[in-house]
Amino acid sequence: MVNLDAFCVFDWRYGSGEMRSLFSYEKIVKTYIEVENALLNALAEVGIAPSICRDHIKICGKDVGAKEVYEREKILGHDIASLAYILGEKCGECGNFVHLGATSYDIVDTTWAMIIRDAISIIKLKLKKVISDLIELSWKYADSIAPGRTHGQHALPITFGFKFANYAYELARSLERLKDAEKRVIKSKVSGAVGTMAAWEEKGLEIEKLVSKQLGVEPHVISTQVAPRDGFAELISSLAILASQLDRFALEVRELSRTEVGEMYEVSERVGSSAMPHKRNPVTAERISGLAKVVRSLVLASLENVPLMHERDLTNSSSERVILPHAFMAVDQMLEDTLILLESIYIDEKAARENLELTRGAILSEKLVVLLVERGYPRHEAHKRVMQLVRSMDENDNFIDVVARDEELSKVIEKDVLEKELKPDKYLGSYRRLIDRATKYAEDVLKF
Amino acid sequence: MVNLDAFCVFDWRYGSGEMRSLFSYEKIVKTYIEVENALLNALAEVGIAPSICRDHIKICGKDVGAKEVYEREKILGHDIASLAYILGEKCGECGNFVHLGATSYDIVDTTWAMIIRDAISIIKLKLKKVISDLIELSWKYADSIAPGRTHGQHALPITFGFKFANYAYELARSLERLKDAEKRVIKSKVSGAVGTMAAWEEKGLEIEKLVSKQLGVEPHVISTQVAPRDGFAELISSLAILASQLDRFALEVRELSRTEVGEMYEVSERVGSSAMPHKRNPVTAERISGLAKVVRSLVLASLENVPLMHERDLTNSSSERVILPHAFMAVDQMLEDTLILLESIYIDEKAARENLELTRGAILSEKLVVLLVERGYPRHEAHKRVMQLVRSMDENDNFIDVVARDEELSKVIEKDVLEKELKPDKYLGSYRRLIDRATKYAEDVLKF
Amino acid sequence: MVNLDAFCVFDWRYGSGEMRSLFSYEKIVKTYIEVENALLNALAEVGIAPSICRDHIKICGKDVGAKEVYEREKILGHDIASLAYILGEKCGECGNFVHLGATSYDIVDTTWAMIIRDAISIIKLKLKKVISDLIELSWKYADSIAPGRTHGQHALPITFGFKFANYAYELARSLERLKDAEKRVIKSKVSGAVGTMAAWEEKGLEIEKLVSKQLGVEPHVISTQVAPRDGFAELISSLAILASQLDRFALEVRELSRTEVGEMYEVSERVGSSAMPHKRNPVTAERISGLAKVVRSLVLASLENVPLMHERDLTNSSSERVILPHAFMAVDQMLEDTLILLESIYIDEKAARENLELTRGAILSEKLVVLLVERGYPRHEAHKRVMQLVRSMDENDNFIDVVARDEELSKVIEKDVLEKELKPDKYLGSYRRLIDRATKYAEDVLKF
Amino acid sequence: MVNLDAFCVFDWRYGSGEMRSLFSYEKIVKTYIEVENALLNALAEVGIAPSICRDHIKICGKDVGAKEVYEREKILGHDIASLAYILGEKCGECGNFVHLGATSYDIVDTTWAMIIRDAISIIKLKLKKVISDLIELSWKYADSIAPGRTHGQHALPITFGFKFANYAYELARSLERLKDAEKRVIKSKVSGAVGTMAAWEEKGLEIEKLVSKQLGVEPHVISTQVAPRDGFAELISSLAILASQLDRFALEVRELSRTEVGEMYEVSERVGSSAMPHKRNPVTAERISGLAKVVRSLVLASLENVPLMHERDLTNSSSERVILPHAFMAVDQMLEDTLILLESIYIDEKAARENLELTRGAILSEKLVVLLVERGYPRHEAHKRVMQLVRSMDENDNFIDVVARDEELSKVIEKDVLEKELKPDKYLGSYRRLIDRATKYAEDVLKF
Repeated sequence: MVNLDAFCVFDWRYGSGEMRSLFSYEKIVKTYIEVENALLNALAEVGIAPSICRDHIKICGKDVGAKEVYEREKILGHDIASLAYILGEKCGECGNFVHLGATSYDIVDTTWAMIIRDAISIIKLKLKKVISDLIELSWKYADSIAPGRTHGQHALPITFGFKFANYAYELARSLERLKDAEKRVIKSKVSGAVGTMAAWEEKGLEIEKLVSKQLGVEPHVISTQVAPRDGFAELISSLAILASQLDRFALEVRELSRTEVGEMYEVSERVGSSAMPHKRNPVTAERISGLAKVVRSLVLASLENVPLMHERDLTNSSSERVILPHAFMAVDQMLEDTLILLESIYIDEKAARENLELTRGAILSEKLVVLLVERGYPRHEAHKRVMQLVRSMDENDNFIDVVARDEELSKVIEKDVLEKELKPDKYLGSYRRLIDRATKYAEDVLKF
Repeated sequence: MVNLDAFCVFDWRYGSGEMRSLFSYEKIVKTYIEVENALLNALAEVGIAPSICRDHIKICGKDVGAKEVYEREKILGHDIASLAYILGEKCGECGNFVHLGATSYDIVDTTWAMIIRDAISIIKLKLKKVISDLIELSWKYADSIAPGRTHGQHALPITFGFKFANYAYELARSLERLKDAEKRVIKSKVSGAVGTMAAWEEKGLEIEKLVSKQLGVEPHVISTQVAPRDGFAELISSLAILASQLDRFALEVRELSRTEVGEMYEVSERVGSSAMPHKRNPVTAERISGLAKVVRSLVLASLENVPLMHERDLTNSSSERVILPHAFMAVDQMLEDTLILLESIYIDEKAARENLELTRGAILSEKLVVLLVERGYPRHEAHKRVMQLVRSMDENDNFIDVVARDEELSKVIEKDVLEKELKPDKYLGSYRRLIDRATKYAEDVLKF
Repeated sequence: MVNLDAFCVFDWRYGSGEMRSLFSYEKIVKTYIEVENALLNALAEVGIAPSICRDHIKICGKDVGAKEVYEREKILGHDIASLAYILGEKCGECGNFVHLGATSYDIVDTTWAMIIRDAISIIKLKLKKVISDLIELSWKYADSIAPGRTHGQHALPITFGFKFANYAYELARSLERLKDAEKRVIKSKVSGAVGTMAAWEEKGLEIEKLVSKQLGVEPHVISTQVAPRDGFAELISSLAILASQLDRFALEVRELSRTEVGEMYEVSERVGSSAMPHKRNPVTAERISGLAKVVRSLVLASLENVPLMHERDLTNSSSERVILPHAFMAVDQMLEDTLILLESIYIDEKAARENLELTRGAILSEKLVVLLVERGYPRHEAHKRVMQLVRSMDENDNFIDVVARDEELSKVIEKDVLEKELKPDKYLGSYRRLIDRATKYAEDVLKF
Repeated sequence: MVNLDAFCVFDWRYGSGEMRSLFSYEKIVKTYIEVENALLNALAEVGIAPSICRDHIKICGKDVGAKEVYEREKILGHDIASLAYILGEKCGECGNFVHLGATSYDIVDTTWAMIIRDAISIIKLKLKKVISDLIELSWKYADSIAPGRTHGQHALPITFGFKFANYAYELARSLERLKDAEKRVIKSKVSGAVGTMAAWEEKGLEIEKLVSKQLGVEPHVISTQVAPRDGFAELISSLAILASQLDRFALEVRELSRTEVGEMYEVSERVGSSAMPHKRNPVTAERISGLAKVVRSLVLASLENVPLMHERDLTNSSSERVILPHAFMAVDQMLEDTLILLESIYIDEKAARENLELTRGAILSEKLVVLLVERGYPRHEAHKRVMQLVRSMDENDNFIDVVARDEELSKVIEKDVLEKELKPDKYLGSYRRLIDRATKYAEDVLKF
C-alpha cells in the first residue's frame, strides 16, 4: 500500500493502509459505480429503466476503474460525466439509462457519505481501543502517586491513574461527538440537479428511498444540488477536537519525559538523534502534536465550504478532495501513534515519588490552609500567611520545619500533627471514586 | 447599554444589550459570587462551615462588584483570589470559610457554564425565530417559481419556497448541534486544585453535588484543575457553523439583489452610499457575511485551548476571555440581522419569472434529455447531442426552435410535444413534498 | 509524473509536474545528499576530513535514493540518521566523516531552503506571466466600458482595462511580498545540534560559510537546532495572500459569467454538467476559489510551528512535511488555472454596455450631485434629493426624465445639459492615467 | 482610560491606554474629520471649492465627535454619510463641498492608514525595546552555561546568552517584516466610488496628491472603491508571526520555570493560586501564550477579506472593525508583558549548572563521537556504539566511567582524555561569535 513515488507524505509515511485505500481514487470510482448501480436499480424498480437492468452495472461496469475515468476526464473535463459516458457505452441497452435524472453530486455526495461512514468506523474502532487502554491504565496506576501540575508548577499530588482517567473521559466525549456528527453527515443525496428530483417526476421520492436503502444510508430530507456542507464542517471540527485531545495527551508524554522530570517515557529502539547518541526523544508523541496542527488548520476550509452560492457553487469540490482524506489520514496516524504510546509507555513511579519531594513539603500548602481553618483561622488569612512562609523558604528548608518554626502558626498547630497530616498519600481526595466515575462513563460510551 | 466610549465595536455597534450584559464584568463577578455562595452553602450543609453561613454571601457579598474586585486585583494580580479575600473580609465568621478547598477555576468554569447556558439560550431563541420565519416563507413562496442556480448559472427552475425550506432544514441542524454541544459544555466544575477534591476529604463528591444542584448545572464526571476544553471548542465550532450558514443565506440575498438579478431585496430607508445616491446596498446581509469571518476565525483559538499542559496551564484563560464573549456577540448580531432580513425581505416574483426566460428555454435542457431517453435515446448520447445544440444557440435562438429545427431530433420528438413539456412550471419535481418534509423536520427540531 | 494510484489529489489531479517532482521524496533525498556532500567538502577544506573526500559523495552516494533510505528508516526510525548510516557504509574512508558534527536539521533545513528557493522560483515565474497578461489585458480593454459594482450593485462605470489594472497592481504586490519573504526563508542552517557549532570547534563558522557558498544559500546569523520558523510562517502567509488574490480574480470571473450578467466567460469544450447539457460553468475559476480555502487554512499550522520549545521540538517536522508541499502545489495549480483563464477569457463588451443601461441612467447619479453642487447646491442636500428621486423611479422611468420632470431640479439644470453630461463614457475620470500608473508599477516589479 | 463597564476585556484588562485610545471611536471620528478636511483643502486648492474653505473644517467640525455621528447613524444607517451630512450642515458655504466626489472608503481607508501607522509605530517602539533588552541579556548571560534542549531532552550545553541572542535575531526579523508590511499597508485611498476619481474629472490625481501629502501618507497607485486588502492581511499575518515568536519566548519561560527545571522565573508579588499558597506561576508568560492564540486566529478573517467582489463588497467592514483593533491590542499587551518578563526575569545559574549534571556526562556524547572519529572511527559506527553505551547506563553510572570501562573504546581513548575533553564549558562551539553576529544583526535592524 505504500506509494513511495508519491508526492504526499500520507501516501507512504503517515496513516494506515486501510484508511489510505479508502480514499484512493480507485475506491472512490468503485463507489461511484456502486451508487450508479443502485440508482439504475431504482430506475428499474420504478419502471423507468427495463427491469433487466437490475444490478447490471455490477457486470458491465466491473472493469471500469480510476484509470479509464481519468483518461476520459482528460477529454471531457468532468469526472462523473466521464464515468456516466463510459458506463453508457459499456452497458448496452441498460447503458441508455445510466445516471438518468441524476446530477454529479448525487453520486459524489452519496459516495462521500459511504466512504466517510467507513472512515469514521475505522476512527471509532481505534479510538475505542485508545479509550479501553486508558481505562486499563487508570486502574493499573490508580494508586501510583505523582505530582499534579498546573502552570508547569507542582500543585497537589495526584495519581497516574487519575491522570489517565481524565483522558479516558475526555476521549469518550470525542466518541460521543463523532456519533452525534455522523447522524448529520452520513446521509445520501439523491435529488437531482437542484434538489427537486425534477427529472424523475412523481417518482423522485421513491427512487431516493430505494437508492438509500440499497446503500444503507438515510437521505437528507431536502437538499440543493449538494448535501448541506454544515455536516462536513461538523465532521472536520470533531476530528480536529479529537486531534487536539490526542495532542494534549502527547504533550503530557513529552513534558513528563523531560530530562528533569523523567516520569514517563516512550520506549523505543529508534535512533533518537543523528547528532547526539544519548537522546531518547519522544518522537511518537511529537508526531501526534505535529499532525494535530494540520488537522486544526483544515477546519477553516471546511467552514468556508458552508456558504456556497444558491443551489451550490463548485468551490467545495477541490477543497474537499484535499481536506477530507488528509484530515482522516492524519487522525488515523495520530490514533495509531497514541496506541503505540499507550501500549509501550514506561512510567517511572520512583521518579514521580522523588519529584514529589522537590518542593520539600510545600506541595501540601493547601492542606495546611485547611488545617488552619479547622483551627479557627479565616481562610484568606491562612492563605496569605502560608504563602508568605512558602516564599520565605530557602533551598535547604523543609515546609514542615518552616511552619513549625513560625511563631504564630506553631501556637496553633503542632509539629507532630503536621508530620502526620502533610503527607502526599493522604491528600488525594476522592481520586478513586472519581476514577471509578470516569471509567464507568467511558465504558458506557464504549458500549453504544 | 450602549457604551460609546468603549474600544470594542461589540460594546456599542454590534450585538444585543441582553447578550452584552451577560458577558459584562459586573455580571461575571456577580455570578462568581453566586458560585461562592453555593459552595459555602454546601460547606455548611456537610458540616465544614457553620450552618449559619447558608446564603450568607447573598447578604455580605451583595455590594461587592466588578470595581472592587478590579481594584483588589491590581494589588494581588489574581481576580478570584481578590474576590475570595474581599468576601473573606466582609463576611465575618462565614468569611473564614469562603472559597475553602476550591480552586479559582471551580468558580470560573462553573460561572462560564452558567453564562454559556444563558447565552446559548438567547441564541437558541433567536435561531428558533429564524427557523420559524423560514418555515413560514417556505409555504408563502412555495409555488413562486425562480431559476435554480449552480455555479452562478441557471440550472433548473425551483421555487423560492423550496429555497427557504433548504435553509430551514440547514438551520434546524444547527439547532440540533447546539443541543448536542450544550450537553458537553454546560457542566459545573467543583473539584479543587487538581480535580481530586483533596481539601474536602471524603466530602468532595457531596459538595460537588450540592453546588451543582443549587446552580442547576450537572458536574463533569472528572476534571483536572479545569473542565476539559473540548467542550468549549465544540461550542465555538457549532457557533461558527451556524455563522457560516447565516453567511450562506446572506450571500443568497446579496447575490439575488444584484442589479442584474433583482429577485430579492433588503428593504430599507438607509443611505445606501455616501457617494452614489442611487444605490440600494444589501448592507445587513453584508454585515452578516463580514461577522461570519470573525466567528470562523475564533474556532482556531478554541481548538488550541484543548491541549493544556498536565492538570492545566493558564493559556486558555486570556484567550477565552476574548473568544467566548466575542463569538456569542457576533452570532447574536448575525441572528438579529437575519431576522430583520427575513421579516423585511422583498421578493420580486416577476423579476424571477423574467430571469427564467434568459436562457430562452435551455434551462430545461435536462428535461429534453429525459424525453429523448424515453424515446429510446441512450442518455449519454442524448446529453451530448443536447449540449451541442445548446452551444450552437445564438442570442436570438430559442431552445425549442433549435431542437425543432434539428434534423435528427425533430424526427424523434415533435415541436408540440416540446412546447407542452418544456415548461418551467412543469419541471419542479417533488418540490412541495420536499418542502413538506423539510419544514416538518424543522418543526420537530423546534419542539424539543 | 501523474501517480494515479496515489492517495493525494495533488499526486495526479492538481499541480504541475515540475512542482510535484520538486517535493517528491526522491528529490528530497537527493538534495539531502547534496547537502551532505557540501558538508563533507567543507570538512575536507578545513582539514577535518581527508582532502580526497571532496565531492566523493557525488560518487559513492549517487545510487542512494528514497527507497533505500526508507527501508533503513523502518529499522532506525529516523530518516537523516538512516541516510548518514548508508553513506557512512558506502563511502569507504570518507564515509567515516559523513555528517560529522551536523544535526539532522542542518541537512533538512538547508534542503528545505533549496527546495523552497526552486519552488518560489516556479511560483514567481508563473505569477510574472499572470501579471504580464493582466498588463496586456489592461491596455487591450482600456476603453472597454462596463458597470463598476460595489455591494453587487451598479455603482459607476469603469472599463475592463481598469479592472484588470487593479489586479495587475494587487498581484505585483504579492510578487514584492514573495521577494521580501524569500530574504528571510531561503537560508541555510549549518550549526549543529543546538546551533553552537560545537562539534566543529573553532572551525564552525568557516564550515558554515563553505557549505552555504557551495549550495548558493546564505546562512542564518544564528539558530537553534533549527532555522527560526517565522520564515516559514511568512512564506505560507504570503502564499495564502496570493491565493486569496487569485481567489478574488476567480470570484470576479464567476460573478461576471452569471447567466444574468454575462460579461466574462471561461471558454471551454468541457462538459459543464452531467445533468444539464446547457450549462457553461466557470469551473476553472471555481477550482481556484476552492483551493484558495485550502491554502488559507494552512497558514494556521505554519503559525503554530513558530513557538517550538527551547532549542526546538519536533512538532514542526510532520506538519511541515504536509503544509509546505501542499501549499506550493495548490498555489501552483491556481496560477496555472489563472493563466488558462487569462489566456482564454471571453469578454462580452456588448453585454457590458447593455448592462450599463439597466439602471436607466441612475448609475450616473453621483455625476448629477456634482453638477448640482457646481450650480450652488450643498452636496449633502443634493445627495439627499437625488437619492429620493432615484428611489421614486419605477421600472419604466429613465433617470434623466425623472430629473427633468422634477420641479425643483429642473429649475437648476436643463434637460439638454443632463443629456450631454450624464453619459457613462464621460464619467470614467482618470482611468487611463490610473491604468498607466498601475501597469508601470507592475512592470517595475516584474523587472527586479 | 480603563472602561470597566465595557463588555470587552481589551477595554480594561488588556492593552495599553495609548493603543486603546488610538482605536476608540472618538479617535476614529476625529481622524475621519481630519481626512475630510484634507479633502476639502484639496478641493479648494484645485478650484472646485472656494479658497476660503481651506482648513475650515478644523473650525466648523471641531465639536463634532463620536456621539453626534452615532446618533445620526441611527437614522441614516451609515456612519460616513452621517458625518458628511453633519459637516455639510455645520460648515456653511464650505459645507456645500464637504465630501464632494469622495466615497466613504476614501475616508475610512485613509483613516485606517493613519491609525495603523500610529499603531505600528507603538508596536515597533515596544518591539525595539524588547530587542534591546534581549541584546543586553545576550551579553549579560553570554557565558552563563545551561543545558540546550531539543525534544525536551538535554541535547548539548549552550549559554543563556546564546539563547537570548536567538530571540534577538528572531524578533529583529519581525521588525524587518513590519517594515516591509507598512510599505504596502500605510497608503492613502483617495479615488472615489470605484477608483476612477470620476467626480473630480481631470483633477483627480492632483486632489489625491494634495490629500496624501497633507496627511503624510502615500497613495495606492490604483484602487477600486477600497484599498486592496492584501495589505491588511499581510499586516495581521506579520502581527501573528510576531505574536507567535513572543509565544515562543513565553513558552521558554514557562518551561524553564517548571518546578523540576527552575532555571528561569518570573519575579512577582502576585498571588500565584487561590488554592495553593506555594505556587509561583508564570502567569505573565501564560498570558502572552494565551493571547497569541487569539492573534493567530484573526489571520484567517484577514485572509478572507482579500477576495471582495468586483469593485468591493462590504464584508470587510464589520470584520475589520473587530480584527484590526483587537489584533493590535493583543500584541500591544503581549509586548508589554514581554518587557515585564525581560526586565524582571530571574535566572538561576546555579540550577542550570546542576541540571547540566543530570545526564551524568551523557550530554557530551556527541563530543565523544567526534573524539572517536578523530581517532579513526567511522562516524556512524561511533554513533551507534556511543548510543549503545548511553542506553546501557543505569542511574548510578557516569558517562565517562562507562566509556572508560568499555573494552573496545577504552583501547582507543584514555580516561584522562575523556576527563579533560568531556566538559560542558569546553563544548560551546562558536557561541560568542554567534552571539556577536546575532546582536550586530539585531542592532542594525534597530537602526533603520
